[in-house]
Amino acid sequence: MKILSLFEPIRAELEVVEERLHQAAEVEDSQIRDILRYLLDSGGKRIRPALVVLASKFHDSDIERVLPLATAVELLHTATLVHDDLLDGSVLRRGDPTLNANLSTGAVILVGDYLFARAADLAAATESVPVVSIFARTLMTICSGELKQVFDQGAWPRTKEDYYESTYSKTASLFAASTEAGALLSGASGPTVQALRDYGHNLGMAFQIVDDILDFTGEEKELGKPIGSDLRQGTITLPLLLFLETHPDVDILPSIFEDEQGREERIRSLVDMVTGSSAIESARAAAERFTVESKEAIQDLSPTEYRQVMLDLADYLLERRL
Amino acid sequence: MKILSLFEPIRAELEVVEERLHQAAEVEDSQIRDILRYLLDSGGKRIRPALVVLASKFHDSDIERVLPLATAVELLHTATLVHDDLLDGSVLRRGDPTLNANLSTGAVILVGDYLFARAADLAAATESVPVVSIFARTLMTICSGELKQVFDQGAWPRTKEDYYESTYSKTASLFAASTEAGALLSGASGPTVQALRDYGHNLGMAFQIVDDILDFTGEEKELGKPIGSDLRQGTITLPLLLFLETHPDVDILPSIFEDEQGREERIRSLVDMVTGSSAIESARAAAERFTVESKEAIQDLSPTEYRQVMLDLADYLLERRL
Repeated sequence: MKILSLFEPIRAELEVVEERLHQAAEVEDSQIRDILRYLLDSGGKRIRPALVVLASKFHDSDIERVLPLATAVELLHTATLVHDDLLDGSVLRRGDPTLNANLSTGAVILVGDYLFARAADLAAATESVPVVSIFARTLMTICSGELKQVFDQGAWPRTKEDYYESTYSKTASLFAASTEAGALLSGASGPTVQALRDYGHNLGMAFQIVDDILDFTGEEKELGKPIGSDLRQGTITLPLLLFLETHPDVDILPSIFEDEQGREERIRSLVDMVTGSSAIESARAAAERFTVESKEAIQDLSPTEYRQVMLDLADYLLERRL
Repeated sequence: MKILSLFEPIRAELEVVEERLHQAAEVEDSQIRDILRYLLDSGGKRIRPALVVLASKFHDSDIERVLPLATAVELLHTATLVHDDLLDGSVLRRGDPTLNANLSTGAVILVGDYLFARAADLAAATESVPVVSIFARTLMTICSGELKQVFDQGAWPRTKEDYYESTYSKTASLFAASTEAGALLSGASGPTVQALRDYGHNLGMAFQIVDDILDFTGEEKELGKPIGSDLRQGTITLPLLLFLETHPDVDILPSIFEDEQGREERIRSLVDMVTGSSAIESARAAAERFTVESKEAIQDLSPTEYRQVMLDLADYLLERRL
């Protein structure tokens, strides 16, 4: 497994998480095992487990309760990706085929459900009721946010406020839950838990905005999926919203939702317009603001090597190209 | 709300569960609220919440921890029904349209996920880590069982052993979890918890077998769905397996899986053959055996009115016609 070099101080913990993720795939049925292995070995950056571990380092934490949580958070994340890809009809993720590229809808739904259950079981292994509760509520937040989007497709997010709300639900809520729960498990004080939660929240917002920018400006080869994927799925993100603020004359509806014929070409031209405009720079400024806020949230915590990793992680995620 | 008359001794508790189920539907977004209300007010028999409450009555239980669990179990059950109907392509349940009759696949998946999350949150409200763990593992059992069926569709269950395994996963596991967790929460002794778990397990087996018999012999009007629905979805159940034991010459494959043309007619004729055979009686005998076992499991518990309800419930579920 590759571990981001900046995670070196928590390498031992992340290696155990990796083993436990692998164990979560060890089920009796060989077909199901192969699918779970494919999902769990496919090498995400494991940012969320790292956040759990890092956030637990500001008090005397019991690593045997932190590691199940770190594993649970990655399983929950994987479960939501499985259902998301099905919802979006995505056939590629990180350059690899998604489950729905090869399996029936029913199988994909059940694999996601199984991962939720496995995640909940590991959350229970923390032996902390508040942690299980944070966990369950985060899943409620993620689902409610997505349901809103599904019901209002074509009309949502309509505003920057909608966009930020949706970004919180789909990404920042789990980042915030990871740091909050990690801190809570360690027995850290209320203000420390809050500071770490705020760090996770702002980091998650910045992370998603950068993701949304890369969907316009990234390299298809690096991203492992085509540019403009969000638009093609009818998902409106910050760069487009900012572009529309300064180009009220551009009507995006025909490009995205109406009239199949020539749709692909219209989407490409819309991507080019957004990429060539100042919207990218403005979106980038927004991501930078959240990055700064995330770093400020933990400025009063003890200046340990773990806090340094968290500060470096914020910069790394802002500068990343995939 | 209608409460089964045999549940009279726990009417007060079931009324609170009903309120809490209603509360679970009270979300901000009005479209999502309407869907949740539709699902949660649509009047199941609330057998699983009743099992939780009844099983908690053999020790001094704290009703404020039992009620969230009873509500959680019904939400988990509802979530699995939502995903199941989608998997099966069912458009009717208890005579009412299923969600997938009117909503997109994505919306149905997310509504199910939301209900899982809400259920997990309520399970956490019991403040019992073992209960959350039972809860999560039951969902794992349900999903694994269904995954097996999805992957081997057309070839599974092949034997009575497969059938019993699948019946445990899809139905008896949640019945058993309901009584076990209810008993555990009450602080009952190990043997009492085990007795109540055994009761739930056997009751669930009998319940599902009766369900499977009714799919052959029931009245469509009472069932709220067409006769032979299982067969039509490619699900092989005990009556058919028993029929095939005594009719090795009958090849079911063309009826169910091959050749769309004339399929409906062949399925009806297969239903008629099974219904007219001794297989129904043999399946009924199996359901009776599980019913007897469920009652025997609790024979040494204190002979309270609650134990009496459990004995009566076993008979009622065996004799029911819908």
